[in-house]
Amino acid sequence: MSSKKTLNVGLIGCGFMGRTHSNAYRKVGNFFSLDRQPVLKAICDFNADKAAAFAQQWGYESVETDWKKLIARKDIDLIDICLPNNLHMEVAVAAAKAGKMIICEKPIARDAKEGLKMVKAVEKAGVPNLVSYNYRRIPAVTMAKQLIDSGRLGRIFHYRAKFLQDWTISKDLPQGGDALWRLDVKVAGSGVTGDLLAHCIDTALWLNGGIDSVSAMTETFIKERKHQLTGKVQKVGIDDACAFLARFKNGSLATFESTRYARGHKALYTFEINGEHASIAWDLHDLHRLQFFDHRDEGPLRGWRSIHITDGDHPYMKNWWVPGLAIGYEHSFVHQVADFIQGLTSGQPAGPTFREALETSKVCDAVLASASSGAWVKV
Amino acid sequence: MSSKKTLNVGLIGCGFMGRTHSNAYRKVGNFFSLDRQPVLKAICDFNADKAAAFAQQWGYESVETDWKKLIARKDIDLIDICLPNNLHMEVAVAAAKAGKMIICEKPIARDAKEGLKMVKAVEKAGVPNLVSYNYRRIPAVTMAKQLIDSGRLGRIFHYRAKFLQDWTISKDLPQGGDALWRLDVKVAGSGVTGDLLAHCIDTALWLNGGIDSVSAMTETFIKERKHQLTGKVQKVGIDDACAFLARFKNGSLATFESTRYARGHKALYTFEINGEHASIAWDLHDLHRLQFFDHRDEGPLRGWRSIHITDGDHPYMKNWWVPGLAIGYEHSFVHQVADFIQGLTSGQPAGPTFREALETSKVCDAVLASASSGAWVKV
Amino acid sequence: MSSKKTLNVGLIGCGFMGRTHSNAYRKVGNFFSLDRQPVLKAICDFNADKAAAFAQQWGYESVETDWKKLIARKDIDLIDICLPNNLHMEVAVAAAKAGKMIICEKPIARDAKEGLKMVKAVEKAGVPNLVSYNYRRIPAVTMAKQLIDSGRLGRIFHYRAKFLQDWTISKDLPQGGDALWRLDVKVAGSGVTGDLLAHCIDTALWLNGGIDSVSAMTETFIKERKHQLTGKVQKVGIDDACAFLARFKNGSLATFESTRYARGHKALYTFEINGEHASIAWDLHDLHRLQFFDHRDEGPLRGWRSIHITDGDHPYMKNWWVPGLAIGYEHSFVHQVADFIQGLTSGQPAGPTFREALETSKVCDAVLASASSGAWVKV
Amino acid sequence: MSSKKTLNVGLIGCGFMGRTHSNAYRKVGNFFSLDRQPVLKAICDFNADKAAAFAQQWGYESVETDWKKLIARKDIDLIDICLPNNLHMEVAVAAAKAGKMIICEKPIARDAKEGLKMVKAVEKAGVPNLVSYNYRRIPAVTMAKQLIDSGRLGRIFHYRAKFLQDWTISKDLPQGGDALWRLDVKVAGSGVTGDLLAHCIDTALWLNGGIDSVSAMTETFIKERKHQLTGKVQKVGIDDACAFLARFKNGSLATFESTRYARGHKALYTFEINGEHASIAWDLHDLHRLQFFDHRDEGPLRGWRSIHITDGDHPYMKNWWVPGLAIGYEHSFVHQVADFIQGLTSGQPAGPTFREALETSKVCDAVLASASSGAWVKV
Repeated sequence: MSSKKTLNVGLIGCGFMGRTHSNAYRKVGNFFSLDRQPVLKAICDFNADKAAAFAQQWGYESVETDWKKLIARKDIDLIDICLPNNLHMEVAVAAAKAGKMIICEKPIARDAKEGLKMVKAVEKAGVPNLVSYNYRRIPAVTMAKQLIDSGRLGRIFHYRAKFLQDWTISKDLPQGGDALWRLDVKVAGSGVTGDLLAHCIDTALWLNGGIDSVSAMTETFIKERKHQLTGKVQKVGIDDACAFLARFKNGSLATFESTRYARGHKALYTFEINGEHASIAWDLHDLHRLQFFDHRDEGPLRGWRSIHITDGDHPYMKNWWVPGLAIGYEHSFVHQVADFIQGLTSGQPAGPTFREALETSKVCDAVLASASSGAWVKV
Repeated sequence: MSSKKTLNVGLIGCGFMGRTHSNAYRKVGNFFSLDRQPVLKAICDFNADKAAAFAQQWGYESVETDWKKLIARKDIDLIDICLPNNLHMEVAVAAAKAGKMIICEKPIARDAKEGLKMVKAVEKAGVPNLVSYNYRRIPAVTMAKQLIDSGRLGRIFHYRAKFLQDWTISKDLPQGGDALWRLDVKVAGSGVTGDLLAHCIDTALWLNGGIDSVSAMTETFIKERKHQLTGKVQKVGIDDACAFLARFKNGSLATFESTRYARGHKALYTFEINGEHASIAWDLHDLHRLQFFDHRDEGPLRGWRSIHITDGDHPYMKNWWVPGLAIGYEHSFVHQVADFIQGLTSGQPAGPTFREALETSKVCDAVLASASSGAWVKV
Repeated sequence: MSSKKTLNVGLIGCGFMGRTHSNAYRKVGNFFSLDRQPVLKAICDFNADKAAAFAQQWGYESVETDWKKLIARKDIDLIDICLPNNLHMEVAVAAAKAGKMIICEKPIARDAKEGLKMVKAVEKAGVPNLVSYNYRRIPAVTMAKQLIDSGRLGRIFHYRAKFLQDWTISKDLPQGGDALWRLDVKVAGSGVTGDLLAHCIDTALWLNGGIDSVSAMTETFIKERKHQLTGKVQKVGIDDACAFLARFKNGSLATFESTRYARGHKALYTFEINGEHASIAWDLHDLHRLQFFDHRDEGPLRGWRSIHITDGDHPYMKNWWVPGLAIGYEHSFVHQVADFIQGLTSGQPAGPTFREALETSKVCDAVLASASSGAWVKV
Repeated sequence: MSSKKTLNVGLIGCGFMGRTHSNAYRKVGNFFSLDRQPVLKAICDFNADKAAAFAQQWGYESVETDWKKLIARKDIDLIDICLPNNLHMEVAVAAAKAGKMIICEKPIARDAKEGLKMVKAVEKAGVPNLVSYNYRRIPAVTMAKQLIDSGRLGRIFHYRAKFLQDWTISKDLPQGGDALWRLDVKVAGSGVTGDLLAHCIDTALWLNGGIDSVSAMTETFIKERKHQLTGKVQKVGIDDACAFLARFKNGSLATFESTRYARGHKALYTFEINGEHASIAWDLHDLHRLQFFDHRDEGPLRGWRSIHITDGDHPYMKNWWVPGLAIGYEHSFVHQVADFIQGLTSGQPAGPTFREALETSKVCDAVLASASSGAWVKV
């Protein structure tokens, strides 16, 4: 790995996403032939002990506790933002000004207004940028994209997606702080809409084009929770659940739903798309399978095909093992880094760029506005 | 079967539903111990040849071509209405006036206004009455009802249902006439809303209580079709697809969707209900299975149970075969007749009665009104 | 139904199989256009009360308690034998001598020696005859047969079948008598081999041709049980479980297994066949689905198709409902009667005839012989 | 990672298995807290270019082309043997003599005779040793082991396993050389028996104890293939398919089957175990799920539970991501390295040791002997 040009990474945030990204940088060179080799140059967290332990575990060369110092470092090529949503904008804008490439965890920010500032900053600076909507790069999802783009489905009639979890049903779960910042509306911006539906929307826009308008409803089932930082019982500001109807610009109809109150589902992200000639369905709980129905198959033998996406001619899979042997969740991040680096070389940037990811936040904003007003809202 | 009191049936309509009901009357006495034995006394269809052939095939004792004459006959106890929706009201009101028991195919009528007239008529006459929402009596669905009523799920957070088909995608399919009256809005009243969503709504009201309000959208993908009777290309008046958001009176949120443009699905009626402690899911394509998740199972062993509803302690099943051996679609109608007759005996009428079924039509009306106005509509 | 020539049935045995056959005779004319209409002329059981109740429930015109009298009746065309295995031979031989058509429950007899006498009797008498291996006529299984015969699978490499149940695990279950005669070796002839594996073997011979040789093992897990008739604890003579290896005449290899000690399985009869170009799998617990894999599908889109066998162009299904609406276990018997009657008309007898069914018993005998000797046995 | 004691690895063989093991050594320290940190000290392959490229891709510090030199190096703690089966013995015996720890790919050797020499060598040298039967450490499989050991299943009646592939059906596939050495009997020792059934047997012995005796059959469907090295068409010596019956020492019955001619299956390793109280099933194609049926669940709610093995209280999973997010095939090797290192610390060696893995080869030898003789063979 020594002879390649390096890509020096400075990663901010030692949480769950910090781990998925670190793993991706470490692994990508073992499985993909790339022009540049990521190097884990520096980890940054305001908590010095946490940062040091993380550096030790992942092999980062140095530790920072002030992200501004990290950004100021000359030896860093890429800033990777694995912070809570409320910090995305400030860090990203500063990193862009410093001329750094940026990979930012999703959603781009708490809302489209913040996101737009980030878009302007990276475009003004002309730095490569990406928002980490990793599910695009599950091989079965990429395969769906290829099938749809090939025209195999024909005219699209329907799209439906949901992302169901069940981890916040207990009334005793506190809100805010560390691992629970997603329940604090000031930090997260919204609840399931920005956290889970944002994934569904990103995939949908990628697969099926733009959304024209939406009608939404949200609900907060547990109205008050103790705040982990203040210790006080406070009103819950996030949406526990959100569902919406949508009309796509291509004339197709859609339903979207997300909740953290669907008992029995851990991370059930599913989507299905129905076209004139064929349909596709996918499910994160069995992420290595793509369901495919082709009406052009001969009549009595038509059926949903369960395609085990582990062959060399499936997206990304020639880089991994042999047919039948599945990869998992973490590999989507490896593919993301591989594509990002290939985009640097080819000049065709990997998506979604900040500008592309901004569209998802616009839909999220429209969804929340509709849930608030009770009316259909144009995106 | 000879010694029992008979229940003399006069059935109107020789179409698909005429067959399902006739089969149920013929079979029920072989499998259920009932006080009264249905007798296929008369079949009625305006087409005399069709009626005669049907009588021959099913063993009806006599044939009528004028439903008014049938209703006038003294030897008929029960009028079974298997006619297109536009004829339900007139026939049912007349049958009620004549003092006949009535079983009517779903939906009760083209809209709630018509339905209300039917409710008033049967209640004034004091005759037993039922609308044939047969899916309530698929054993797995009845089992779901029992589980929910037992409180096993706890507080309900979510309900979702869909009914997906793909049989009208071809532009060359004509509308109206005989087997295609469901595509003619004057006859059917609406498209998928009254045909398919009505099933979903009936089950939902039964399992989860009343719906408070809805936000809906509808679409007609193929705008014009040749009319089978006139031979002319005419505007299509029905909804090809309909999706809606709903809030139940118990505070739970719901999504409903139906279409005849979902490639790969023949009659995919599915529902799922998520409660605080447990969840249930069901699927008409595998109607003999109930999916059940219980959070109270010990942690590492929690999983969705696929319950094969074929045991003697499952609803209705002790009357059929042995564990592992499935029954099918048609049996729901047999159960319906069995329950109807048991209701005559017990004085606890089998549901949904006309009054209960009217609620489903009220929801359908609200859905169509919302789709038209773009606003949330109270039921 | 009145104008057709009748087929007067005399059925012997009021147990579970008596019900499945009676139901088939009653229903077949409602769904299939046939030259002859079955009439439930007489039911026969040595227990007069039971026979009378059965006649009442199913509409039999008369009751007999002595099967010899039944066979002697001039008004009976067809004798249907739904008796325990030890009685098949005597009744069938007598019925053949009396010139009656015969439908006999499977297996043909307790062993091939008895079966051969029956074959000789019906062939000497020249009477139509059939053994009721009903699973051939589950539409998905018939569809498998058509696919294999069309050559679509190419050279066959593998066949595997199993029939798993779990209803005899309790040590407290008695053996023998009434509903439990299948546990009494003198009555049944063998345990799972004749009861369950016989089904697997019949299907296999039909789909994949003759079996050359076998190596088997059997086990009786519960060595002693109380006998229901004697009240005494006696040695159990049946095989509780049996598995065997087989080589087919076409060069393919097979595994077969059956047991009543597989916790969690009620009647899990499954088979799979692997050919050069394609594979097929089926499962009685989801009997309306056929799994099909075609290697000739384009590479990245190959997958097992789950075909919902409910379309008009699937075997038998145009006679039933509409796509998506499943039939069940009992319908296989209706198809059997339909095919039997069509065989009378066409002169191409429906299978398996007694002679064809004898082959299954020869394999069963070879299996039991191999289990006893520990050596491979030629069929 | 710097402060820990290192574990210096010298790996021999740059093929598929070399990649899975290298990946495991690189990753394990990021996810597991261990006393020793593996260091990729040296890669060895007789092909110098291949070794150099591999070293570059995986970050090995040095390259060797002669395994004897590698073994002689003082800076190597552990020899990892990822070579074809015919080389296992010589290398392992030499490594043991040199006092190295050894991890060896499965099967231990071409036969038990060779394996026994290896067992004696490591035991004489007193070096830690392990054979890489990685499937034991798929979390769902480990979970099965814990359930069985807890007694939850009760008395075991049945075990069945199969490993089905379809990659050698083409007659044009050559045998021998590089990636195809598994088709060359001199190198591999046997075909599917040593390659695939060995996995099934290792798991079975681990879960269900020792095997007493077997009756087997094998087949070579394609009798001659061109040899990749000689260029000549030669007789194929391996078994393309093998199936066997087995009796376990605990009295349970088993069926095992493996083939590379089962169209539609890539690496379908499945097992099922049926106990008095509960049953378990697993499938490599959906490796993150465990199927579990518990008869002690209340009657009408019994069903197979599909347990998504991704929770923190499932084996190994607290070290990875969050519930619902699956890991894949490669992680079983990471777990193996973690357990091996923990075994060094704890003094409880991770299994299977060479001695334990020898048992699997004894069963394989008995299987091949039985297939040859046609008789039951004691293990």
